[in-house]
Amino acid sequence: MADILHRIGVKDIAPETVYEALTTVDGLAGWWTEETTGSGTAGGRLAFRFPPVGGFDMEVLETRPAEHVSWRVVDGPEEWIGTTIDWRLRRDGDYTIVLFEHRGWKEPVEFMSHCSTKWASYLLSLKAFAETGTGAPAPGDVPISDWH
Amino acid sequence: MADILHRIGVKDIAPETVYEALTTVDGLAGWWTEETTGSGTAGGRLAFRFPPVGGFDMEVLETRPAEHVSWRVVDGPEEWIGTTIDWRLRRDGDYTIVLFEHRGWKEPVEFMSHCSTKWASYLLSLKAFAETGTGAPAPGDVPISDWH
Repeated sequence: MADILHRIGVKDIAPETVYEALTTVDGLAGWWTEETTGSGTAGGRLAFRFPPVGGFDMEVLETRPAEHVSWRVVDGPEEWIGTTIDWRLRRDGDYTIVLFEHRGWKEPVEFMSHCSTKWASYLLSLKAFAETGTGAPAPGDVPISDWH
Repeated sequence: MADILHRIGVKDIAPETVYEALTTVDGLAGWWTEETTGSGTAGGRLAFRFPPVGGFDMEVLETRPAEHVSWRVVDGPEEWIGTTIDWRLRRDGDYTIVLFEHRGWKEPVEFMSHCSTKWASYLLSLKAFAETGTGAPAPGDVPISDWH
């Protein structure tokens, strides 16, 4: 098993605001992909699409306000199915610290390396969205390679 | 043991150019930190400084032109010492693909998550530097959190 782990700090923004960006369709569409539908609270299901290449369906496993959001991937690229994505939030001084974990990859394939870099760029989009109201969601996301 | 893995694609740029950005002091200073000194070819030693917080010293283990660069960390934060950093380059269509591996972390501590995100932002700086001649090296790098 292999994991993608990241950490960002969102400046002068409360954990509640970041939590909202992770659990509402408008929030998620503001930094990940504009084509987000579904319900982001525990028991719900979220569909993220990145035309023309497909996307991901997530089951929302847990949503503890301002602290923790957990998803399980139920549809998407084969390597992603069954993996879990956790978001842990805490306040630390002027920052909301976001610990990100995408766990359960069967193998550290090259596609995982790509996703690791791409997640980092989306986390910086989340940070910008929470701090300024403007993120860089798909289709206006930052291109990092031939795999987009 | 835990690893940080990333992948970027540098568009319309040959592997030789990326290799130069990884093995010369001027290249490294163009995307990682302006305070780079030493020698970047096999058997050399490189010192990277990020005032005021310290930096890293690397032994250059291998430099295979346009293909592979390998470093071992010999001084810096305790968690980094003894870890290895590998850069693998290959041409794929219009891109030079860069596979990045920072291996040998004893534990996946929070500082590793921070370094994973920060490496991604420096890799995008490397991409920009190779493609346009302008990167975002320290001290003008992208802040990602309270840990900078």
